[in-house]
Amino acid sequence: MGRTSDARERIVRTAARLFLTRSYQAVGIDELCGAADVHKGSFYYYFPSKAHLARVVVDHHAAALWARLDSAGAETPLRQLRAVADAVGAIHTDFESRFGRVVGCAFGNLAAEVATTDNGLREHVAAVLAEWERRIAIICHRVAEEGLFRPGVDPERFAHALMAQFQGLILLAKVSRSPAADISRALHEVIAANLREGVLV
Amino acid sequence: MGRTSDARERIVRTAARLFLTRSYQAVGIDELCGAADVHKGSFYYYFPSKAHLARVVVDHHAAALWARLDSAGAETPLRQLRAVADAVGAIHTDFESRFGRVVGCAFGNLAAEVATTDNGLREHVAAVLAEWERRIAIICHRVAEEGLFRPGVDPERFAHALMAQFQGLILLAKVSRSPAADISRALHEVIAANLREGVLV
Repeated sequence: MGRTSDARERIVRTAARLFLTRSYQAVGIDELCGAADVHKGSFYYYFPSKAHLARVVVDHHAAALWARLDSAGAETPLRQLRAVADAVGAIHTDFESRFGRVVGCAFGNLAAEVATTDNGLREHVAAVLAEWERRIAIICHRVAEEGLFRPGVDPERFAHALMAQFQGLILLAKVSRSPAADISRALHEVIAANLREGVLV
Repeated sequence: MGRTSDARERIVRTAARLFLTRSYQAVGIDELCGAADVHKGSFYYYFPSKAHLARVVVDHHAAALWARLDSAGAETPLRQLRAVADAVGAIHTDFESRFGRVVGCAFGNLAAEVATTDNGLREHVAAVLAEWERRIAIICHRVAEEGLFRPGVDPERFAHALMAQFQGLILLAKVSRSPAADISRALHEVIAANLREGVLV
């Protein structure tokens, strides 16, 4: 059979897809169960509510992001930083080829939707975004230690600006239907703009 | 009386507030009518649907933004650019004092929510964001003509990066409940980072 045993995973994968291609608010539990081919009783066996499912979906995307970042295997801090921009670009190029367009950041979409309506879910998304920024800040500190940033670039603040740049570029690409390739290009420009003159990128 | 004659404006103002403090999807027409103290018949007399109302709300915010930018009265291109950052900061400081926290950009929130679910509304929001970017690009070209940007800074691309920075910073402040003052400070840092060394900001 296997139908029941993989029901939980089917629900999570279906929700991840539908939250991205439509939105968290727009997708109801009935629609989710239909698309995942599970009974509503199964849904509630695994998840007390759609908000609980959303946390699991966020964790699923976060685990994929950390794995992608960890596997980049870049040798120098600057290459690590550029690998983060490449990873973001690759995620949205993947979404674009799967869904036909840029559909937004799984964390940013949910942040925009629920920050004012579900405080528990807001905190969960905020924690993932904070962890992502912390990882970028560690890399930025290493780039700073090598003296590669322009004078005046603070690693912590640049990590925050870069996170904001990710989120803003992805949101603008989503609303204006521009290609995913533009996101990666713009991110590399922002990194290059903050490096000391003469640093080879 | 005046009750009926200003019903349309009450609906728009109430929707502007509720879409910001909760969200577009979360607020139904019944709730809107209750909060605006109008009958549902009045609502449908003015607006065929919530999506039509949302377009009027977007236009209301856009008109307020253009008025704010036009009244800045800065004398030099660089001051004009800084005035845009100040305007964005002031909008979110206003929201913070009205609503107790950063609630997001009226355009960005809607962009995130409806870009995948309502193509007409997506296009409407995208057009306002494009007009905003066009206005910033005009200023950036003037800053470039005065030779104030660092070598390699393209005015059009910097205008896009700055728009992305606005949207990303506002979204991160909203989800992490950080103060509005951080938005303005970070925007000024991004502008300063793209100016030629020695330019007084």
